[in-house]
Amino acid sequence: MTQTLESASTTTPQARVDAWLADFEAALATKDGQRVAGLFATDSFWRDLIAFTWNIKTVEGREGVADLVANTDAGASGFHTTAEPTEAGGIVDAWIAFETAVGRGKGHLRLNDDGAWTLLTTLDELKGFEENQGGTRPMGVEHGARKDRVTWKERRESEMDEREPYVVVVGGGQGGIALGARLRQLGVPHVVVDKRPRPGDQWRSRYKSLCLHDPVWYDHLPYLEFPKNWPVFAPKDKIGDWLEMYTRIMEITYWSSTTCRSASYDEAKKEWTVVLDRDGEDVVLHPKQLVLATGMSARPNLPSFPGQDVFTGEQHHSSQHPGPDAYKDKKVVVVGSNNSAFDICGALWEVGADVTMVQRSSTHIVKSDSLMDLGLGDLYSERAVASGVTHHVADMIFASLPYRIMHEFQIPVYAAIKERDQDFYDRLEKSGFRHDWGEDGSGLFMKYLRRGSGYYIDVGSAELVANGDVPVVQGQVDHLTEHAVVLADGTELPADLVVYATGYGSMNGWAAELISQDVADKVGKCWGLGSDTIKDPGPWEGEQRNMWKPTQQEALWFHGGNLHQSRHYSLYLALQLKARAEGIETPVYGLQEVHHKG
Amino acid sequence: MTQTLESASTTTPQARVDAWLADFEAALATKDGQRVAGLFATDSFWRDLIAFTWNIKTVEGREGVADLVANTDAGASGFHTTAEPTEAGGIVDAWIAFETAVGRGKGHLRLNDDGAWTLLTTLDELKGFEENQGGTRPMGVEHGARKDRVTWKERRESEMDEREPYVVVVGGGQGGIALGARLRQLGVPHVVVDKRPRPGDQWRSRYKSLCLHDPVWYDHLPYLEFPKNWPVFAPKDKIGDWLEMYTRIMEITYWSSTTCRSASYDEAKKEWTVVLDRDGEDVVLHPKQLVLATGMSARPNLPSFPGQDVFTGEQHHSSQHPGPDAYKDKKVVVVGSNNSAFDICGALWEVGADVTMVQRSSTHIVKSDSLMDLGLGDLYSERAVASGVTHHVADMIFASLPYRIMHEFQIPVYAAIKERDQDFYDRLEKSGFRHDWGEDGSGLFMKYLRRGSGYYIDVGSAELVANGDVPVVQGQVDHLTEHAVVLADGTELPADLVVYATGYGSMNGWAAELISQDVADKVGKCWGLGSDTIKDPGPWEGEQRNMWKPTQQEALWFHGGNLHQSRHYSLYLALQLKARAEGIETPVYGLQEVHHKG
Repeated sequence: MTQTLESASTTTPQARVDAWLADFEAALATKDGQRVAGLFATDSFWRDLIAFTWNIKTVEGREGVADLVANTDAGASGFHTTAEPTEAGGIVDAWIAFETAVGRGKGHLRLNDDGAWTLLTTLDELKGFEENQGGTRPMGVEHGARKDRVTWKERRESEMDEREPYVVVVGGGQGGIALGARLRQLGVPHVVVDKRPRPGDQWRSRYKSLCLHDPVWYDHLPYLEFPKNWPVFAPKDKIGDWLEMYTRIMEITYWSSTTCRSASYDEAKKEWTVVLDRDGEDVVLHPKQLVLATGMSARPNLPSFPGQDVFTGEQHHSSQHPGPDAYKDKKVVVVGSNNSAFDICGALWEVGADVTMVQRSSTHIVKSDSLMDLGLGDLYSERAVASGVTHHVADMIFASLPYRIMHEFQIPVYAAIKERDQDFYDRLEKSGFRHDWGEDGSGLFMKYLRRGSGYYIDVGSAELVANGDVPVVQGQVDHLTEHAVVLADGTELPADLVVYATGYGSMNGWAAELISQDVADKVGKCWGLGSDTIKDPGPWEGEQRNMWKPTQQEALWFHGGNLHQSRHYSLYLALQLKARAEGIETPVYGLQEVHHKG
Repeated sequence: MTQTLESASTTTPQARVDAWLADFEAALATKDGQRVAGLFATDSFWRDLIAFTWNIKTVEGREGVADLVANTDAGASGFHTTAEPTEAGGIVDAWIAFETAVGRGKGHLRLNDDGAWTLLTTLDELKGFEENQGGTRPMGVEHGARKDRVTWKERRESEMDEREPYVVVVGGGQGGIALGARLRQLGVPHVVVDKRPRPGDQWRSRYKSLCLHDPVWYDHLPYLEFPKNWPVFAPKDKIGDWLEMYTRIMEITYWSSTTCRSASYDEAKKEWTVVLDRDGEDVVLHPKQLVLATGMSARPNLPSFPGQDVFTGEQHHSSQHPGPDAYKDKKVVVVGSNNSAFDICGALWEVGADVTMVQRSSTHIVKSDSLMDLGLGDLYSERAVASGVTHHVADMIFASLPYRIMHEFQIPVYAAIKERDQDFYDRLEKSGFRHDWGEDGSGLFMKYLRRGSGYYIDVGSAELVANGDVPVVQGQVDHLTEHAVVLADGTELPADLVVYATGYGSMNGWAAELISQDVADKVGKCWGLGSDTIKDPGPWEGEQRNMWKPTQQEALWFHGGNLHQSRHYSLYLALQLKARAEGIETPVYGLQEVHHKG
């Protein structure tokens, strides 16, 4: 370490990284946690995606590093750079690769004058179970002549009726589909079940004006990128088509029109019993692993108000909203002021409905253009791709930033957005809308990671509020009458339709519904970082709760999030499942504790 | 020219190419054909794909160059290299780009000591009608709020019922689909019609063991590459799925279950009347352009033999063959010895049928592995991709080789294949099979370009003939009896099933069927080069007859070929159609003459 420090100013970034990696590898070999920790800066982070910990885990500081090293034994070696390191602002950046006893990994390293500031280690593939791609792609045809040949079609038909899957994935949206593709590619017998008739219906069934709020560069699925003529923000039916196509092309074993009724785990047999209704047929499967990919936005929070039973108009949760066509000239009250509320208000206004928004708490709004330019542009944009930052690279850069300090990188972005769109925010405020930038000013993405709500990516509807076309009313709903929504201050809002754009519950609610309340409580709240901000109570977790990693319930996994997360983290979840399917030892370091039930 | 010659040995390839391009551009500006011709070698070729000629045209020698220059006026300028030229074996290779008055082009140049040996010029896009891709991709969502918004789904539904297309494409196989994608991307109103229920059924409906005979790197469609886990040789049902999904994703206006009954051209109105049966509904369209993409292998040659009416077994053309499953333990006679004959014989043998092949003329066979390694590997393989030769580059390299001399490059390839697989060919000969290498030893690809038949890419079935499992009998069919096929020499072959693997007729037969015999005769034979070899009579044409270029019938076009051709040439056909749709002048140089009726 001393040697590295002394030479920092005189040697090249390459030499510094090479020396650090050599020291690191030598120290790891001694299994001396303190010696490894000495190579890290006082303020430092080691984020590991299943390469060392068989967990998704960030340890902090030398103490955290020492603990990780003392309690893991990955047999890592062969650390080397995969591109020439660069230096800027006193930080050396390096892309690295390495092996463990059972796999091959990739990572990223940042050195400062004090040692390693951030280290990312990720498992990329398992030895002996490498994916068949490129030069190792399947032949397709079986050359030669053989009696009783089984054709591809016959094999697929048989696979589609898989009755002994190793994994059952409940939920066939983008998460279940991305994971299904990974499992198929890794040769893990699986069934992905979804209640809807076709893959992609998760999107098709939403309100008709819905488009993705994230741009195309952020949204690629594994193995098959969107083509260059794919729109920046895909309309919902188009992304539905893509998901349907992708499911077929990737040969995912996907059961449509299939509802999961219940699941229970036999701790002795280490096996699930999963009861399904497959298009009217009762099917019971006995997988070793169960993944809930039912969506972080799929369990509606439907609020209960006095008078909902006497209200004579129509009322539904935003997730059930059919779109605006039936509501021309109708009076509509939308309760809520986040993404769905705005999109629904906008679409209703467009057909000529008389819409009012009820804002119950402050909301963060960012204009889509500004978010694209200032928030995502360096990592996910045409500009990024042109400069060599493909989504593969961007995913790794993003993964290399520890959640503990991520807000520090976000705050200046939102300060710049505020400056750029000051006029818009001024007008919005004048309209009576309550706007915030997150508790620490870190804006949209931290809100997404912490609580998954509390924001709107403005694609136009915020302007309707700002200019008064859609009036916004502050307050809490007190009760409903036959024809109106009444707020706590007595304000009466006449309504033919009430839309509850009131958000979604934690994903462990799915465990309660499908398995048991006990299991739901045992695994606890999903999502969030423990940031001690609204809807994300402490203590600090360091990673998103329960996502893509072992939970307190053996053989139960949660998968979800946006397309970026479905793409990137499905790799680590799939490798964890594959390792278990093949009997590879997967000792979990630092299994998360549960502090909140939901 | 003298200057160029003198400096050849002392200047860099870059300087030589720069000098040549400057001379070429200056000479072009004078419109002095002789001056331009002086920059070409005595033996030289200029191949133009619609950039200068609005035709697909190769001119030969200085005389050809002078004639092209004297009779075209593309307004070409801005010639420059797009990568550093290289030199090997006395030939300088250069990738170039340029503009014309109406578009932007790419090309390739080979210089020898005598001047330009080969020049390829291609039109890549039309100015003002550039495709929206990458940085100019569509936004998808329309930001902002607007009354009476039309969603993507509503727009697509309306487009799918297009009643005023500029182009009707008859035939929705790989050719029609690739062209449809280009037309969609260029904003040309189109309808692609196909008689089958779903896109991809053209493949699905074939015999069940069928896989593509060309490898994945050769088969990409425009805009969307196969993923890296796609098999080398896709099974027929899998490529069917890909075509179906591609059609949807690319938003092609595609009418399934639609049969074209007739088409006629009004020379005064310059408009077609196309009568369709769309899933039982009569629909008449009036496009300005009609493309026949009905397939070079879709009009069966069904031979007529005495006794076909008394034969009590089953008999059908190979294109109607349902696969082997019903023929276990049956006696089958397959008439023919090319691709379909071998695949069908192999599949029948695999289920335990008693198969005999009747060989009527000699056939060329290449083992798939050898063809991949020695024939395609430099251009279309994982190795090629790894060395930077993507299919985009490969297509242009391939296009840069004039057909007149292509066989010279092919002969040594097949000599090497012969040496590599000598043992196989020896055994094949001993089995009584008549094998050839093409009249000039130029092998499979020249047979494909010249006649589109006469070969088999061996994926295993040839071994069955070589080892006697499938006996081969030489001769012509004389007649059928109740239970047998009888050859001219009296040989009697008992049969429960006769399969006529007797190939396909020229594509202008489609014009006869749909339009009139007069029009079919006016446009003449399709395909072939005029090589004066079997089934490709002279005179020399220089390009494939009638394919992807103007024909003697105004507003009638032929499109087809393998996936490589469907991909690459669909660009030039689509640009020709787009230019006409936009009223851009498209004076055709060197419209082909017709020497053969079919």
